[in-house]
Amino acid sequence: MVSRLVIPLPTNAAAKAKSFDTLEREAVYRAIGSRRDVRRGFLPEPLPEDLLARILAAAHSAPSVGLMQPWRFIVVRSREVRTEIHAAFQEADRQAAEIYQRDRREQYASLKLEGILEAPLNLCVVCDPQSEQGHGLGRQSMPETAIYSSVCAVQNLWLAARVEGIGVGWVSILSPPDLRRILRIPPQIVPIAYLCLGFVDNFGEAPELEHLGWERRAPLEKVVFHDYYGEGAKP
Amino acid sequence: MVSRLVIPLPTNAAAKAKSFDTLEREAVYRAIGSRRDVRRGFLPEPLPEDLLARILAAAHSAPSVGLMQPWRFIVVRSREVRTEIHAAFQEADRQAAEIYQRDRREQYASLKLEGILEAPLNLCVVCDPQSEQGHGLGRQSMPETAIYSSVCAVQNLWLAARVEGIGVGWVSILSPPDLRRILRIPPQIVPIAYLCLGFVDNFGEAPELEHLGWERRAPLEKVVFHDYYGEGAKP
Repeated sequence: MVSRLVIPLPTNAAAKAKSFDTLEREAVYRAIGSRRDVRRGFLPEPLPEDLLARILAAAHSAPSVGLMQPWRFIVVRSREVRTEIHAAFQEADRQAAEIYQRDRREQYASLKLEGILEAPLNLCVVCDPQSEQGHGLGRQSMPETAIYSSVCAVQNLWLAARVEGIGVGWVSILSPPDLRRILRIPPQIVPIAYLCLGFVDNFGEAPELEHLGWERRAPLEKVVFHDYYGEGAKP
Repeated sequence: MVSRLVIPLPTNAAAKAKSFDTLEREAVYRAIGSRRDVRRGFLPEPLPEDLLARILAAAHSAPSVGLMQPWRFIVVRSREVRTEIHAAFQEADRQAAEIYQRDRREQYASLKLEGILEAPLNLCVVCDPQSEQGHGLGRQSMPETAIYSSVCAVQNLWLAARVEGIGVGWVSILSPPDLRRILRIPPQIVPIAYLCLGFVDNFGEAPELEHLGWERRAPLEKVVFHDYYGEGAKP
């Protein structure tokens, strides 16, 4: 009679891979939703080595085209190097300010856009797009996927850092030739992201650029189309 | 006397932002570590609308330069459109096979590299790098950061899908001109990633390309340098 207790599972349910449980799912969504681009509030406390190893391992677990793992991580602790990077930022920032007029320019000048010297650690993520690892698989129609793999590594690291209480700020106001010169990056290697990392006193509720009135987040509906570009979005 | 019960906190501990608790941290690391590039085993069951909305919202929460949110998502359900994409894949795949010789070529031919027709849903992530949202902030020294923001969105989506039990496969063996033609993507918009999504019967323990002997993952030590490119890595 025991067999009567066996309730048939809905079609496919038996074969379907187990998803994460509710609490685990929520943790992942919370990490994604509460990740911030941090430029202020870094605490001077150094990152413990084991913590740094965990977030780098998270980056190293990113997807990569043909399993080529083309990302390389330059961990920058040297004050001297960071001072050079900071000077390069200031020059790029000065040039960037010139495109803005009047109020927008004043607002731009008031933004804090990097934490190069305050953060105890900087990290430059670069890419070796010609690495033989992966035997070129998947790179012929879209060779840029090597670069994209390295960006996926950045995002993995960012989320891992968030759950460790580490703030990450991506400094894009830096010229690639300056990065190459200061960090001795060879010509075949592509600078992808320059990041500032450290414990922070707080993660903002909203992105800082929204909080400060620079820009607002768009609703999701505006960026979702159906079957063809531009079709079916709700503006 | 109550004041004697107040134990001084270690320096910085009071100010430091709360990290996630151990179980939550483990969930995020498990999502990152067990995410796979899925090309086989898709179940035909359609993705529930609310689930699709959740993973698209995760993508839409990605970091973006200047808060420009330049990603656009084309949800492809049409069998007709997917059939055209599949034909484009077959042509790109035929050309890609030609670079391999002997055993490697046979091995390449044996790989399953996409699930365009088996997966119930395809998703093309594209980028509008000239979007005015964000007022150009952070895009002058490295304009490619608009593209990189869209790639971060892909990785967020991939992790959210993993915790929902949804497999994602990134098909890079597709020529951008074919994607433009079939999905009616305008010239100023950049195709970033073509993804296949669906429930799966299983997530592999290891990346499929490793499991099948195409390539092995490199140790983390090989890709970490200190202060300058190439310095201090353990080969």
